[in-house]
Amino acid sequence: MNNFSFQNPTRLVFGKGQIAQLSQLIPTDKKVMVTYGGGSVKRNGVYEQVIDALKDQHCVEFWGIEPNPTIETLRKAIDLGKEKKVDYLLAVGGGSVLDGTKLIAAGILYNGDAWEIVQKGYTTRQLPFASVMTLPATGSEMNSGAVISRAEMHEKYAFYGNYPQFSILDPEVTYSLPKHQIAAGLADIFVHVLEQYMTTPGQSRIMDRWAEGILLTVLEIAPLIKENQHDYAVMSDFMLSATLALNDFIRMGVTQDWATHMIGHELTALHGITHGESLAMVLGGTWRVLKEQKRAKLIQYADRVLHIISGSDDERVEAAIAQTEGFFRSLDLAIRLSEKGIGEKTINQIADKFNRLGSKFGENQNVTGDVVRQILMTVK
Amino acid sequence: MNNFSFQNPTRLVFGKGQIAQLSQLIPTDKKVMVTYGGGSVKRNGVYEQVIDALKDQHCVEFWGIEPNPTIETLRKAIDLGKEKKVDYLLAVGGGSVLDGTKLIAAGILYNGDAWEIVQKGYTTRQLPFASVMTLPATGSEMNSGAVISRAEMHEKYAFYGNYPQFSILDPEVTYSLPKHQIAAGLADIFVHVLEQYMTTPGQSRIMDRWAEGILLTVLEIAPLIKENQHDYAVMSDFMLSATLALNDFIRMGVTQDWATHMIGHELTALHGITHGESLAMVLGGTWRVLKEQKRAKLIQYADRVLHIISGSDDERVEAAIAQTEGFFRSLDLAIRLSEKGIGEKTINQIADKFNRLGSKFGENQNVTGDVVRQILMTVK
Repeated sequence: MNNFSFQNPTRLVFGKGQIAQLSQLIPTDKKVMVTYGGGSVKRNGVYEQVIDALKDQHCVEFWGIEPNPTIETLRKAIDLGKEKKVDYLLAVGGGSVLDGTKLIAAGILYNGDAWEIVQKGYTTRQLPFASVMTLPATGSEMNSGAVISRAEMHEKYAFYGNYPQFSILDPEVTYSLPKHQIAAGLADIFVHVLEQYMTTPGQSRIMDRWAEGILLTVLEIAPLIKENQHDYAVMSDFMLSATLALNDFIRMGVTQDWATHMIGHELTALHGITHGESLAMVLGGTWRVLKEQKRAKLIQYADRVLHIISGSDDERVEAAIAQTEGFFRSLDLAIRLSEKGIGEKTINQIADKFNRLGSKFGENQNVTGDVVRQILMTVK
Repeated sequence: MNNFSFQNPTRLVFGKGQIAQLSQLIPTDKKVMVTYGGGSVKRNGVYEQVIDALKDQHCVEFWGIEPNPTIETLRKAIDLGKEKKVDYLLAVGGGSVLDGTKLIAAGILYNGDAWEIVQKGYTTRQLPFASVMTLPATGSEMNSGAVISRAEMHEKYAFYGNYPQFSILDPEVTYSLPKHQIAAGLADIFVHVLEQYMTTPGQSRIMDRWAEGILLTVLEIAPLIKENQHDYAVMSDFMLSATLALNDFIRMGVTQDWATHMIGHELTALHGITHGESLAMVLGGTWRVLKEQKRAKLIQYADRVLHIISGSDDERVEAAIAQTEGFFRSLDLAIRLSEKGIGEKTINQIADKFNRLGSKFGENQNVTGDVVRQILMTVK
């Protein structure tokens, strides 16, 4: 196990009716900017619950943070926040609303264009922020990261800062989510875990078991959600798994990959592919190209998660990759670039960019632009 | 899943050489009381590392916190802390030293006898405290609880307060631990997990998987530790598993039992049995008496953790209980009261006490004094 330092101070407030706790959780002397996406919270009852809980709080609303939040939109929120002198932020929505809000929390305290914070990759100064999470997927509700897009340049990058003060997770708000968002959310959770698991073998037995535990859970609940999206127990496990997949709990002392995410972000920035679906399209390519490096872990995954017990090692590795793509397919997600009309032009554009930047991704820092080209050609 | 609120702010600083971080972790303006046990830290090099890291810090030492720390000893530390006006506490040792230190941290700010805090069961006022943990077992390094004994009355009770500010875990310090302490530590970890797992079935898939993940890890590493106590990777998993077994991570939204612990505490208070060993002696009795209530979960445990796949349900339940006791036996721990010379007199004494107090333990609050009598008679 590698040396590590771990601290995650976010309070999780989980369960039915917990949105009402907002009035206890936000200090009454704060001027709060409440941030939203496109308006789905007005249809599923969340907005009413939030407004009711915050009726005695001094609030400003900001609407319209889009999926893959753009700096162009967030600059407007930052200007409003500065003008209204807000000193607390509450994101109500999915990971995109919260990611955008993390940048707003930094931007209000920053003299200059907030895109500079994203380019720098981190911030140490943010207003306190919290969330009411409505879409289980990104884990943003209990981590320090955020991914921001710059529409005009087709760019999408992550930056890191503070953790949310609290996040409220009520599984009932997931009952009305569109099927495609649920599918992309499940893929996102699954690949988050794999980015922290499918790396160097033999680093930590307990971290391996916990990663496998989330993978097994996602495989078990995915068909159950398809059957009945109103099963509270199932949706609870969905929501909690999303949080635990990316809140630092399963990466103590182990290496991480993230190449699939870096490539997926480019597909989103260039073609607007939903984040989770972009991962479903890339992962099989990453594994096929890096099969030797990831061999021991792929076999462990085949054994413990997919229960593939017969065949040679090579056959089990192939079966594990195919079954993983089959899982994404069972969610009605694309697993090949051609399904979205993406071809060699985009592949070369992405590879050339990473070559130009000298990017090196993955647990061994050997995924260069040329390797990215191979990966994408494999899933063409 | 039940509604829950979760927050664990402790910083974990894990790995080789991390004790040197102490100088960065404790504010330099603090007057620190450093607390120790009986002196083993002077033989394994920990003391020197601590002294070296704190050489520029204003410190007071307190030695002699014993296994199952007593209020009698802790009162002396509290008096010293008040006299020296300390405002930060650092426990260097195992769970007993840290548990005692948690009471010292509360006692220094309390006007009155600190045993009143234990009797009340919780405190909201404690000096900041932290730990350098030398024995993987209790999980005290990342939770808010502490168990304190009152020697004169043969009593042992838990109280709850704040979390440690940080805990430093260097697996190398476990290389020199006595075999019996390691065995008791492994049993303690194992039963901590089971108290949060072997309860109501079907509450949370992901919490079940994580609990099973720790159990599988402990079963895998126990024989490896016996073989080679200097294997850094194995001792790392041992140390991290102890922390993760009792830091609230595996009890989100699920019921808990703790009957075995309550009974074990009495055996320790009356006969000085090592905590982990007391649990090894009681657990089989708890399960046999509550077999119907715990049936579904026992079968799941037999399947997923012990891989008992043949036989009727009844046979698998029996095999799971027997194999669990066999695991404790493989650690050279007692699993019957008679092995420690404990007989019906003690059994009746414990059962009568719980009846008198009207105690009701377990996830269904149905473990009364009379049920405790049955449990202990089963493992006589």
